[in-house]
This record gives sequence, structure tokens and C-alpha cells, in this order.
Amino acid sequence: MKIGRGARKTGRGGEASPTLPVPISSDPRLITLLTDFGTSDYFVAALKGVIFSVNPRAHIVDITHEIPPQDIEAGAFALLASYRAFPPKTIHVAVVDPGVGSTRRPVLVVAGLHYFIGPDNGLFSYIYETEGKFQIFELTNNKFFQQPVSPTFHGRDIFAPVAAFLSTGVKPADFGNEINDPFRLASLNPRTLKTGKVEGRIIHIDRFGNCITNIAHECLSKNDESRAKLRIKGKTIRSFRRFFSDERVSTEKLFAVCGSAGFLEIACYRESAARVLGVRRGDVVTLEKG
Amino acid sequence: MKIGRGARKTGRGGEASPTLPVPISSDPRLITLLTDFGTSDYFVAALKGVIFSVNPRAHIVDITHEIPPQDIEAGAFALLASYRAFPPKTIHVAVVDPGVGSTRRPVLVVAGLHYFIGPDNGLFSYIYETEGKFQIFELTNNKFFQQPVSPTFHGRDIFAPVAAFLSTGVKPADFGNEINDPFRLASLNPRTLKTGKVEGRIIHIDRFGNCITNIAHECLSKNDESRAKLRIKGKTIRSFRRFFSDERVSTEKLFAVCGSAGFLEIACYRESAARVLGVRRGDVVTLEKG
Amino acid sequence: MKIGRGARKTGRGGEASPTLPVPISSDPRLITLLTDFGTSDYFVAALKGVIFSVNPRAHIVDITHEIPPQDIEAGAFALLASYRAFPPKTIHVAVVDPGVGSTRRPVLVVAGLHYFIGPDNGLFSYIYETEGKFQIFELTNNKFFQQPVSPTFHGRDIFAPVAAFLSTGVKPADFGNEINDPFRLASLNPRTLKTGKVEGRIIHIDRFGNCITNIAHECLSKNDESRAKLRIKGKTIRSFRRFFSDERVSTEKLFAVCGSAGFLEIACYRESAARVLGVRRGDVVTLEKG
Repeated sequence: MKIGRGARKTGRGGEASPTLPVPISSDPRLITLLTDFGTSDYFVAALKGVIFSVNPRAHIVDITHEIPPQDIEAGAFALLASYRAFPPKTIHVAVVDPGVGSTRRPVLVVAGLHYFIGPDNGLFSYIYETEGKFQIFELTNNKFFQQPVSPTFHGRDIFAPVAAFLSTGVKPADFGNEINDPFRLASLNPRTLKTGKVEGRIIHIDRFGNCITNIAHECLSKNDESRAKLRIKGKTIRSFRRFFSDERVSTEKLFAVCGSAGFLEIACYRESAARVLGVRRGDVVTLEKG
Repeated sequence: MKIGRGARKTGRGGEASPTLPVPISSDPRLITLLTDFGTSDYFVAALKGVIFSVNPRAHIVDITHEIPPQDIEAGAFALLASYRAFPPKTIHVAVVDPGVGSTRRPVLVVAGLHYFIGPDNGLFSYIYETEGKFQIFELTNNKFFQQPVSPTFHGRDIFAPVAAFLSTGVKPADFGNEINDPFRLASLNPRTLKTGKVEGRIIHIDRFGNCITNIAHECLSKNDESRAKLRIKGKTIRSFRRFFSDERVSTEKLFAVCGSAGFLEIACYRESAARVLGVRRGDVVTLEKG
Repeated sequence: MKIGRGARKTGRGGEASPTLPVPISSDPRLITLLTDFGTSDYFVAALKGVIFSVNPRAHIVDITHEIPPQDIEAGAFALLASYRAFPPKTIHVAVVDPGVGSTRRPVLVVAGLHYFIGPDNGLFSYIYETEGKFQIFELTNNKFFQQPVSPTFHGRDIFAPVAAFLSTGVKPADFGNEINDPFRLASLNPRTLKTGKVEGRIIHIDRFGNCITNIAHECLSKNDESRAKLRIKGKTIRSFRRFFSDERVSTEKLFAVCGSAGFLEIACYRESAARVLGVRRGDVVTLEKG
């Protein structure tokens, strides 16, 4: 249950509820930014300046600008892991865009009560996969672009102003026609082998060295935990814990945990699991339920 | 004198004062974030999304997310050095939380007209020490938590929503009962030795390589400055300057200065004092007044 | 054409235009921050706390805090490359201030419908050069400063509160007297040699390794492109492309492109041009039109 929904639910029945949040209004609108621009250049500021030029009442939130340069898959995961924390109607601008200026299409995606704006290069793949239902509009109406459009900086000249105009009430269909053939990355889902084993991969390594797999929590029931094994890089992990600081006596420092993004993670007690295991993103991990 | 207080003070007497700030109102409320999450993951964004889901009118300010992973002492210092710059009623969310999911308590601290929310693991020690008076509430009322509470991410599921609900007017006591036995780090105060020397330590090294000690300005009067000595790592510093760019002819590049956080700092003219001295946080520094 | 202006222009004629942005109002005012403080210390937060203490309705946007420590030229370029993306009346606080506490003057600059606040050490040079017309006020009226003024942190005690008071309606002349002798860096303009060649330099290397020159787009007409050559570090670049992903068959990975900051940039297909060329900021680059 999301806080936003829960909060409104408790308001039912008309009882006075002074402790409840202000209802979510569409003004000001939230606009999040996720890019590979880093924070040492002027790129991110340029996006923000354009947004505030169109809609001074926008609320802008940085998701991250530290996606490795041009790493679409990393951007897609970060967006997946964060968008649902935001309230409905949030506008997510995502720019990891190695093909900027080429024929790849700029798009606006409407999915799960959220909006997503960026290049059609796979960045929104995991949103499509997770939400199931979505609409995609190609951004062609250049009256909403900053002119002249720089061939190297669509973030500033197309995506930011489109997000800002959307936040002022422009309708998605006003930006261009609907399309049905988005570019998609390989599925995020792990494979279930004939043996019943689940073969996944490491999709992210976080700042703490935790290795996030693409195997969802639900793959593993409470009952499975005592017998399950994760195999990675020739090592076998048999300990499934509830949290990082679980201090039960153990000779095993490596353990699996149900991570906050909804996936199984491999962690290490007070160390970086990625370093201990020598794991990189993309490495195969296999779950045996016992 | 703080700007906030000064501003209101000059408003006394009812004279027209068009140049004075808008009075501080409780809407929107300021919420600051201080964590060890880094900025390359989705963690910080998740906190912000939750806060805006509860209170779309919140104003969120990042203090820093670059506290070294799980370094509670560094987090405690950064909070101490920054909180007083914010206006009264600011809500400070601090998450450096190696014990997340274990028995350490989540708390809300009211001190010095500010609010502090985070784990009871010492993060707020220096606030207790500086303010003297404070109230601490254990966060137990789970109707203000995001459900289900992830055992690995209390920042998102407990601290962020509690901060957001507090910003909408929920009273501190509504979150849980008062407690009186907070976890505290070793005192920030230096020791005064029998010889009259003051023995302190390096509590922070900043981006410029300045070494911040835990010896307050007040330890040293104007009169002391000409005769005082700081000893660290076998070196003696005799030069006490007013600012970094003091260009008096000198063969001594290392000098002490009254730093902006209220403590004596060791600096080096156009170099990193930490590198020149080979100093690390925790290293002992001794002040002899002459 | 800037979005802000364009948006208002389309509103002419009195037609209903529900899709247009809210008109730019002076409340809340935008304040941008550009510093060399980094984001791991409490410095940036201190500025924000002071600003919100004076004007809780301020909107603060970070341009960057990753200017290399004390690198005034880098700060001046980042400010030049970003300020025009912001709407008129934006207040830009820039603090790269190796001379803090010395005799260098704190100033407020009014230029091109924007405000700039910071030290008079060359940071605003490129603004003067680009805008041509500007007014400069020395910040001497200490009733707008936070007291006591730390000799090492004018960002917090002078520049931030002055920006905040300006955002509440204080007039520029109320902060101090006008001055006419600002400190200026060497001109940003390249030299045109007797041979017709244009001799410029690398003024910035961005996160992607693109090398931004100080040679403006306009130096090179469409007709010139086929015959022009850029010489740098003993290499000759003959390929002038429109965008980064131009995939024409080519053995030349290095190419020049019209960058988003208005200058010619040297880029490399899917690599860092700076690394391939071994270029540093300040290196000479020569344009021959053919």
C-alpha cells in the first residue's frame, strides 16, 4: 500500500482527520529528473531553468544524475525502482540518450497514473513490463520545444519544456500521435528452467555493494527460505535474512535479503558483497528452492 | 545572531519594513535530508517521493547524502554543523543506519526549536550535547508508517512519512511515547589536562582539506593567539589567522583559523592541510595557550 | 528564442490559452547556487538554511557544487553556460572564492535581466563580456549580512542573505554603492590571426569527455564545414557533424560539433575525446576555414 492511497483511504467516512495530509492537488506538479549528466556540468541546471521558465510553480526533484554515461539499462532500473514512491500524476523526465539527434523518437508515456518523458530507446522498458497498460505519444509538436532545438541536447530543448507544459495542463495527445512500437530492452524477468531452478542476473549494484537480482521476492515463499540456495560465481548462499544487521551467530557473512526495490539482493555483513564476490552487473545468479 | 531571529526582531514596533523577509510560516514546512545513501541510487528519491505523497507542499532540502557509508559520527557532525542555519520548526531527517531492522529504536527529537527524525544510534548525540534541553519520542505508531515496512529501508517507510506527517501538523506525542535513555556517542568536548593544555581531536576533514577540531573558538581569547600552539602529528602550528587568504609574508603554510562551524580548524595556504599533515579523523590535537 | 518569451508571445491576441504557462511572477523568486563547495560537507546546506530563514518562499536550484576547488575560470564558464536557461529576474549566487576574508569585494551584478551575487574576482567576467551592459553594486550594507560575519564563509554570511533579501524585494542600490572597476579574467574570445585562422582554447571538458572550445558556432558557416579543419595537440579534425550519434561510415572517430553551450566542441564517437587527445583545459585549438 502506498502512503498516498492509504492516507486518502483513512479519510473515508467523513471523520475529522487533522493529522492527514493535504489532498494531492495537481498544482504544483511534481517533475522528477533522472539522467546520466552528472552534477559537475551545467546540463541539469539547464533543464531546471527551462522548466521554471515555462512553469514557475513546478516542483522539481532529482532522482539521480549519476547513471553511468549512456547506460540505458541502468537508467531503466533506477526509474523502475523509484517511480512508485511518487504520488500519482508525477512527471518523470529520464534522459540517458546516446542516440540524441538521430532518428530515435522522443516520447511521452502514460502508465500507472504517472507520466514519463524521454527518448524511445528502452529507458521505459521496465515500466511497460511492470505496468502492462500504457500509452505512448511521439513528441512531434514543436511548438512545445525550445527553439532552435540543439541536435545534441534534447533534454533541454524537447524533454524539459514538454514536461513543463504537461505540468501546466497540456494534454498528452497535444504533443503528438500515439505509437505502438516502442523500443524495448530484454525482459527483466528471470527464466524458470526445466529443473525448476530460476535463472536470473544481477541488475544493479548499489553504493553499499549490495547486489540486486531480477528475482522478485515472490519467487520465494517463507517455507522455501530454509532450504533455498542462491548460486553465483561458483559460490553458494544458503542464508536468507530479513535485514542487514541480523546478528545471529554465523560463519557466513554473505546472505540474501528481500530488498527494498522488491527483488532478492545479495548482501554481506559490514562489507560490500559485490567486492567479496567479484560480481558485476549482468552476472548470472541461480535460485534453487531446495 | 541568526538571520531568522534578527529579522523578526527588527520588525518590532510596527514600523513599515518592506525590505524585511516574509514572516516564517509553518506552511510550507522545511524538511532537510542527511544520509549516507549517496546520489547514484534511487534511495534519496524514494524518501522524497514518500514525503511529497503525504505533503505535496513540503520544501525538501538536501544537507548531504555523502556521509561515508554507516559512519554515524560523521553524520552527527554534519548535522551539528548545519542545523542552526535553518529556521525554527525545520524538520531534519537523518539516516545513517547500520542497524536498520534490528532493535535500535526509530525516534523523533525536539530540541532547540528544531525537529530531528532518525535512528537512535548516536546520530543526534551532538544535538543533545549542544542544546542541553530536548525531548525524545520513540516512533511506534505505525499508522504513520508506509506499509509494509521494509526491514532494510526505514528511511523510506518510517522516517520519511513521519517527517511528512509532522509537517502537516501531527503532534510529536502522536508518534509514540517519550523516552529518556537515548544512545549517545562519546562527548564532542575536548579534555582539559592538569597542565592546562586542551586535548582534542580532528572531527572532520572538509573538501578543501581543512582539519576541523573539536576545540571551540571560545577556548582561545584574542590575547592567547600570539602565544598559543597547536600540536598535531609531531608538528607545531604557531600561526593563528583570521581567514584563509591572509597573505602575510610567512614561511609557515600551515595555520589555525576560527572555522565557520564554531571550531578551530587547521588549514594550509592553497593546499590540503590534511594531506600535508597526513591527518585522519580521530587524530589527537593539543592546544597550549602559551 | 527563449521558452519564457515564446510562451508569453503565443498568448497574444487574447485567445483562451489554457495550455500556456502560468505567467512568471516574482513570488516565489528563483535563486540558483553555483559553488566549489562539493556536496559532502555542510556548506551548501548552510547557504540554503540562511536563504529560507530570510525568505521561506524562495525556490532554490543547484547549478553545480562541483567546480574544482578555487577554480574561478571553471566557475565563470559554468555560470555563462547555464544562466540564460533561467527566467528573467533569477538570482544567481556564485561562490568560488579563494580570497574570502581578504580585500576582494563582495558584489551584486545586474545584467541581462538576471542578478548575480558573489565575490568580485572574475567569476562574472564572461557575463560582462556577453551582456555588454551591466551594473555592479559593492555589498557594504551589513544590515543584510548574517552577524557575526565569519571571515572564512561569506557564502553563508553575506552572499546567501543578500540573495534572499533581494528575493523579498530589496533594491540593488540598498546593498551598497555602484562600482565601475570590476576584476576581469582574460577575454573569452578567441584571437583571429593575420592568416585568417582562429586561435582559441579549450575552456571546459564535460563529463562525457567532450572538449568545449571558446570558438562560437557563428565562426563557422554551413559552407565552411566541408573544408574547415580544427588542429589540436598535433592532430587535425576534418569532420564537422551535427550530432553525437551521426553514424556515417567513417574511419574518423574524432569530430567537431556545434555544442549546446553555443561553442564548437570536439567529441569522439562513444569515447572521451579528452582522453583520446590527451587534452586539458587551456590547450590551444586552431580553426582553419579552408
